[in-house]
Order: sequence, then structure tokens, then C-alpha cells
Amino acid sequence: MNKRTVFFVSDQTGVTAETMGHSLLTQFDSAQYQSTTLPFIATAEQAAEVVRRIDEAGRASGLRPIVFATLVDDAVRAVLQQANALVLDFFAAFLGPLEAELAMPSAHASGRAHGMADLAAYTARINATNFALANDDGAGARDYAAADVVLVGVSRSGKTPTCLYLALQYGVYAANYPLAEEDLESGELPAVLRPHRQKLFGLTIRPDRLQQIRQERRPGSRYASLPQVQAELRAALALYARLGLPFLDTTQCSIEEIASRILERQRLERRVRP
Amino acid sequence: MNKRTVFFVSDQTGVTAETMGHSLLTQFDSAQYQSTTLPFIATAEQAAEVVRRIDEAGRASGLRPIVFATLVDDAVRAVLQQANALVLDFFAAFLGPLEAELAMPSAHASGRAHGMADLAAYTARINATNFALANDDGAGARDYAAADVVLVGVSRSGKTPTCLYLALQYGVYAANYPLAEEDLESGELPAVLRPHRQKLFGLTIRPDRLQQIRQERRPGSRYASLPQVQAELRAALALYARLGLPFLDTTQCSIEEIASRILERQRLERRVRP
Repeated sequence: MNKRTVFFVSDQTGVTAETMGHSLLTQFDSAQYQSTTLPFIATAEQAAEVVRRIDEAGRASGLRPIVFATLVDDAVRAVLQQANALVLDFFAAFLGPLEAELAMPSAHASGRAHGMADLAAYTARINATNFALANDDGAGARDYAAADVVLVGVSRSGKTPTCLYLALQYGVYAANYPLAEEDLESGELPAVLRPHRQKLFGLTIRPDRLQQIRQERRPGSRYASLPQVQAELRAALALYARLGLPFLDTTQCSIEEIASRILERQRLERRVRP
Repeated sequence: MNKRTVFFVSDQTGVTAETMGHSLLTQFDSAQYQSTTLPFIATAEQAAEVVRRIDEAGRASGLRPIVFATLVDDAVRAVLQQANALVLDFFAAFLGPLEAELAMPSAHASGRAHGMADLAAYTARINATNFALANDDGAGARDYAAADVVLVGVSRSGKTPTCLYLALQYGVYAANYPLAEEDLESGELPAVLRPHRQKLFGLTIRPDRLQQIRQERRPGSRYASLPQVQAELRAALALYARLGLPFLDTTQCSIEEIASRILERQRLERRVRP
């Protein structure tokens, strides 16, 4: 069966169009489609070429394509509207009501979102990323005093990608400390973490999922065995309970969701704001 | 002067609402506002509490708040509409036309976007992040053979955050190699990179900006001096030109934009797709 084609068309990176379109399409379970992102479409000529591609895809599949667009320039948007497709244009839908509410015209200028309008924000993200990299594994002298949050959890419970995402997306300083067997056996908080208890946030994960992840990394090892995984997770949960640490089960969560829940729960200040 | 309040309200992380709202608000240069994200609003009771907060913010500032919402549940959305605010609801605007086009009802179920619907995608992002971390600085034996792209550039030109973003957002395997003084003096591609020339992508940056970044890192050092920065950047650009490498000036670019332009230019396959 032919799949419907979905296009994300943007005068910038296409991230907004993709995010928007993705959210909407996930509401249609059984819809089958293949998607193409066409970023940096900034001129009427480029838009005309996009229209040719869209129309060609429609002819090839026999199904009218769906287009999610974020195009600021009226002329470029007008060209795209000529495509034989369902064109859902984000700016067309919302700029009007916003102009009315704010009682001011919009700039109709592309390149503003995701552009480097704010050098301070860019620097904050880079600095937070460097912080996450430098405070990633709990070894050596770590700068927990400068951290906004310190994630704790057993190996492969999602700490590192979450720290990096918090840094890149929000400019938050996130360190992490992997709970090693000796920490779990003692049942005590490691000495280096004690002064920072208010910043600690625990991660946990379902044993079968953790086993699967570790198995990929070190097949057949004790590290990846179910009894080992179960014992570590049980000890980590007991530690969180004893200390009254907030924690999250990451099994069903995307990285975005883990990060967002930590921000919310810890009431963290974002250094990068929309 | 009082600032207008902007709310991002979501039954999920709020990332889509923020991205959408941010894109639109950047079109209004002179609008002053302060923003609040309210994620995980999933019930009518929670929505009623949100309405109280919105109305309170409106009373406090004397300016009607603006609300960007991504709420899938009709009942929750109906409560939010009672706020004394301009409520721009993303699902309300686009689900109708999509239902008509696809000739099927939408699920009206929350938690689909950014949820872990796709375990394979989650694993791809984690694996790509681990790859980026393991192939970050050019030292030791690097797995360039497995890389989708290898970023080259002088120290602090944006390689590391870009690699991490490519991994976390798109599941792309991005390695990076910092061009050291000996590489730049020889004018030759380092031997380890020669077999992977098709994967190389150069970064450059304006000298004054690079000086500023390095100055933050090692104030007063030769490393952060303008002559040093200029000489390195000149030599790197000469190398890109001699080899015919694609490259990008990151000075005016956000991390999203750098990543997006590299994907586009190198025609990289994304392992994670909307």
C-alpha cells in the first residue's frame, strides 16, 4: 500500500515544523506516512521547487500530501499554498490573532526562531554542556557546588543523556553520580554527595529493560545479568526511600520527558527560555 | 512597565508549546513578556488551577495573558478556554483539518508526542550519544568508520555541542576532531582522518567571537589571544579550501541551526524521525 507523504517545510531549521507535525500525527494511530524535511526555504523560487516536489510525491503515491509549514514571508507562503496538498501553516494560523492581541504588526522576518538572537543564551547552553561533560561520572573531584541538580542512579539508568539534554535544551547545570556496588552495599549516601542532598534526584528503571540495555553493552556479563540488575535497582530504591529523595522511573519516558519532569519537580530555573 | 505574561500549557512536557510560542513571539520585536511553562496538565482539575494562575497573572500585570497550549483532551481544553486570556490552542487549530484529510478520527489521547512510543528510537538516541561521547576529542583510537559525520575545527568552534545535539535529537553518529596547531602548521589532513574524507565537515567562527569564548575559558592566555585565534582560523579555512571540505561559520548560528545545516548539506539519514 502506498504511504502518504508528509513534508515539513521551513525557512529555518524545520525543528518547529517537525515538532508540531509530529505531535499532531501521533494522534492518528493507523496513518501510514513517510516524511521529508525541507529546511531553509527562504525564497519564492525555492518554494516553487518545493511545490514541484510535493506535487510529484502526490502523483507517485496517489495520495494528497500533508505539509506542515513554518514560513514567515507572505510571498513564500503564497507559493507553497499552490501545492496540491493539505498545507497547515503555523504562522498563517496564529500570527493574526497575536497581532490583534498585541496591537502591533509582526516582523514577518524569517530566521528569528532558533537564530542566535541571544548570545547569552547560546553561551549558557555551551557552558552547561561543558559542565555536564566535566561532571559526568562521579570520578575525581566534581563541582557539585555549582550544579543545579545531581542525578543519581545505577549504571545505564539514563543519567548521562538526561544531563546533556538539560544542558543543551535549558542551560541547566546537571551533574551525575553513578551508584556503584559499594555505595549500594553500604546503603549510605557517598560522602561527596552529602553536602548536596537537596540537589539529588534519583533515576530508576524496570529490571528487564535495564538488563536489555546492559546486555547490548556487555553481553553475557555479570553486569548484565538479571539477578545483578535486580539487586542494584532494589538497593538504589531502598536508598532513595531512606533519604526521601525524589525519583523517577525512566522506563516509559523519553529523554525530553525525563528532563521536563526533573525541571518541574526540582523547580529548576532554566537559563535558556523561549 | 508591567510585562505581559505568556503561559505554555501542555498535557506533556511543554516542549512543543514552547517551540511553537517562541517562534511566534520572536516575530514581535518590541513585545515584553515573561513566560511560565506548566507541563503535565492532564485533568480538568489541574486545568482549573491553571486558569486561576492565568487570571491572577492578568490581574497582577493589568495585561491579558497569552497562552500557547497543546492539550489533546477536549474536556481539559474546554476548561482552559475559560481563562481570561488569548488562548492559542495548537490541537484545536489543526486536528480538525487533519481528521478531514485523513478521513479518520484522532485519538484525542495525550502522551503520544515525546512519549516512548518507539523504543528503537530511544535506543538509537542513547547509542548515538554514547558514540559522540566516546569520539569527542580526537585522542586515542576513534571509531571514525562508524561515524555518519566527523566535525573538524579549531578548539571551541562548536564541535562538541553540535555532535551531542545531532545524537540526542536525530540519533546521528557524529565524531569530532579538533585541529591542533601541528595539524594546522602541516597543512595536511591528519592521517587518521584521510580514509574518512567524505564524512568530514568543517566548522569556523569569527575571530572576535572565538577570542571571547576562549578568554572566558583561559583568561589572558596565548590560547585566547587574538593573533593566535586569527592564525588558527586562517589555517583551518585554508585547509578546508585545499581539501574542498564543506564548512559552516557558526558565529551567527544556534546549535539547532548548525546541526540542521550539517544534516542538510551532508544528506545525513536521521535515525530518529518525527
